[in-house]
Amino acid sequence: MEKENREFLLDLLKEKNVRKLREELLKYNEADIAEFIEEIDEVQTLAVFRILPKDIASEVFAYFDSDMKLHLLNLMTNTELTEIVDDLYIDDFVDMLEELPANIVKRVMKDINPEKRNIINQYLQYPEESAGSIMTAEFIDIKKNMTVGQTLEHIRKVGMKSETVYTLYITDASRKLEGYLSIRTILKNDESVVVETLMEEDVIYANTFDDQEDIAKLFKKYGFLAIPVVDNEKRLVGVVTFDDAVDVMKEESTEDFELMAAMTPSEKPYLKSSVLEIAKNRFVWLIILLLTATITGSIISKYEEILTAVTGVIAFLPMIIGTGGNAGSQSSTIVIRGLSVGEIELCDYHRVFLKELGVSLVVGVGLSLFNYFRIIVFGGSKEIALTVSLTLVFTILIAKSVGGLLPIIAQKLNMDPAVMAAPLITTIVDTLSLIIYVIFVSLILI
Amino acid sequence: MEKENREFLLDLLKEKNVRKLREELLKYNEADIAEFIEEIDEVQTLAVFRILPKDIASEVFAYFDSDMKLHLLNLMTNTELTEIVDDLYIDDFVDMLEELPANIVKRVMKDINPEKRNIINQYLQYPEESAGSIMTAEFIDIKKNMTVGQTLEHIRKVGMKSETVYTLYITDASRKLEGYLSIRTILKNDESVVVETLMEEDVIYANTFDDQEDIAKLFKKYGFLAIPVVDNEKRLVGVVTFDDAVDVMKEESTEDFELMAAMTPSEKPYLKSSVLEIAKNRFVWLIILLLTATITGSIISKYEEILTAVTGVIAFLPMIIGTGGNAGSQSSTIVIRGLSVGEIELCDYHRVFLKELGVSLVVGVGLSLFNYFRIIVFGGSKEIALTVSLTLVFTILIAKSVGGLLPIIAQKLNMDPAVMAAPLITTIVDTLSLIIYVIFVSLILI
Repeated sequence: MEKENREFLLDLLKEKNVRKLREELLKYNEADIAEFIEEIDEVQTLAVFRILPKDIASEVFAYFDSDMKLHLLNLMTNTELTEIVDDLYIDDFVDMLEELPANIVKRVMKDINPEKRNIINQYLQYPEESAGSIMTAEFIDIKKNMTVGQTLEHIRKVGMKSETVYTLYITDASRKLEGYLSIRTILKNDESVVVETLMEEDVIYANTFDDQEDIAKLFKKYGFLAIPVVDNEKRLVGVVTFDDAVDVMKEESTEDFELMAAMTPSEKPYLKSSVLEIAKNRFVWLIILLLTATITGSIISKYEEILTAVTGVIAFLPMIIGTGGNAGSQSSTIVIRGLSVGEIELCDYHRVFLKELGVSLVVGVGLSLFNYFRIIVFGGSKEIALTVSLTLVFTILIAKSVGGLLPIIAQKLNMDPAVMAAPLITTIVDTLSLIIYVIFVSLILI
Repeated sequence: MEKENREFLLDLLKEKNVRKLREELLKYNEADIAEFIEEIDEVQTLAVFRILPKDIASEVFAYFDSDMKLHLLNLMTNTELTEIVDDLYIDDFVDMLEELPANIVKRVMKDINPEKRNIINQYLQYPEESAGSIMTAEFIDIKKNMTVGQTLEHIRKVGMKSETVYTLYITDASRKLEGYLSIRTILKNDESVVVETLMEEDVIYANTFDDQEDIAKLFKKYGFLAIPVVDNEKRLVGVVTFDDAVDVMKEESTEDFELMAAMTPSEKPYLKSSVLEIAKNRFVWLIILLLTATITGSIISKYEEILTAVTGVIAFLPMIIGTGGNAGSQSSTIVIRGLSVGEIELCDYHRVFLKELGVSLVVGVGLSLFNYFRIIVFGGSKEIALTVSLTLVFTILIAKSVGGLLPIIAQKLNMDPAVMAAPLITTIVDTLSLIIYVIFVSLILI
């Protein structure tokens, strides 16, 4: 929403010109209406929300962040609450329930019809971040002996409530998934054609217990609008739609970013999190990293005599440790990202290892030569230049191998590879590069 | 594709049982067929590709990586080439052209009909990574005085070639965009209803020159299946479909990961890039970082006397520098990610600054207290513990402020905020933390 439009709406609100405000608001997309309501004064939110027509209101409601939802639910009458909640898609509804405090959940669930309550309870049993927890139970399933005409009639009857009319799923009598059909195929065929002759049998599907990250990979690979979710008996139980998949991609990628910068992933947006919440997510990791850095410290203490014996040796320490860390994080980032988008598979570990070995030789030798001449040009001795450069080659070699392999090992141990980025790799590389430096210093310089 | 299925197909290929191979292959999704063909022996690729029916072949072709496309185009006859290329969607076709060497482009373009050639040339003029370069020119536009029945008839006629039948766009006589309509709305209304009464006028659209990252943000915000692209006169010229948006999201997020780990973003997947290509993307950055680390080195040289005057002072150097770097990269990562998904806007800079200030006070004081007692428990002197802990508080304060603000400043200067992560922040924080340490050491310990 443009700034001037927002201000126009705010003026209408100030003038209490409700009729005009409603008329103007409805010109916008639901996501924009939600954004506008989130920005106005808290006391007025319910009043503005109430002027929206019922069907728009529930769509707007789904776009609110959890604080806003909670705020409104607290203020609503029971009738309003039931109306809003009845109109939400089941997956949005369950998302909401998972974020609400128990007393509100009780109030929300009280007036829900038993059939819907059953479905919801089933949803709540799926593990967090599973296909089951992000799917919608509203989809269109048809039988293979139906004609195109009957299918269109069926869509007209049930389709208005369905989030996914674009792909139709064909199930047998026991609800087992048999095939799929895009609405495009339906539209281009005559009303008398039978579905069986049109349907695709090679259905790409997920299991309710599959991890949401794997679902996102299926969307990336096939470019589908929706992916069906089946239970262990291959019965169709839901559909993950592409907008949910986009949310998952965003979430998973943000989680990787946060883990790699050594933070505990947060579910709340940054600007909505309190200082204490943010500090908590960062503090533990900084402590862990600080403790691991003491290993480096104790090595320096132990060899302080060697490192301070020749003037200038200490000055190269931050550069060596820094370059090792940078080289390692280049490799680990590439591999973590590759694993997460599916470009690198677990079985590729030897290819990754060979590639990182090759790259580290090229980069290491190049960087060392550059460094050798740089030190000499700036008046350093040949011996120091040699010591620092030899240390660099081995540091980069180790950094890139460790950086390339640790994420794969983590994945193999069923850990999130992104955890391997900062903490462990830095510690290992710091320690090893320091030891290598001490060895070369004592061999060449002392 | 499961391993046993792949092996079954490979056996059929070995037995030269072409009829059965074709039958079995066609059971799979085009993305899987492409994956299979990419994995078989290079000599046989064209032979296997040739057994596919024409319409499937061009879909499979679109899934190939650029090496494979080039390999096949080189081997194909002119007739085959024209057939494949005629069936590709324009955006896929242009993507391909941009990756091919000039002599192949000439051969491909020679037999293309003039109308298509015109559209393609227009596409090639859009800047890389613009909405124009990723949109498809195949969409369905209708007029507002059409009825639902006429619309369905229209779709049946033109819709088979259109990548996006799910959203219909309404344009006026001069092709200006007036509104949109989902196929769902069409399907649930009677044949006699006029489009004008159904269409939504609040169209969210992009301009041909908008950056593809902004388009991805629109998809994330609104959850649409497609977003229309208009020229400067608001005439509808194309549509970005959600599968292209997913590719953009993947690309942009990978680019951020690479920039933040100090690498030049690569367009090729890791396992397909040669060692030299990878080394090139990493080398320059490592050199830059190495050079900036010499600033730290020269400060150490300058104050070597102070830093080695008291035993043990040097040993805390890597921990102080490391903690500063980690604290800073936590902040910059959060802000870069927030900017890229649209959670943080440019105008939020003071909120980010205040938040980082608060977090750094909490984290800094906590970490320093912890560190103070740790040093004393492990037999360090109270003076050293005080010096190191005071340095830590200020280092974290500076690291988090710099880390939080630099990406926003970069964005304001129209640079990619992700560039700010590693290189600049590390240098600034390293240098400042070292100076603070030297000051406290000389104030308290000497």
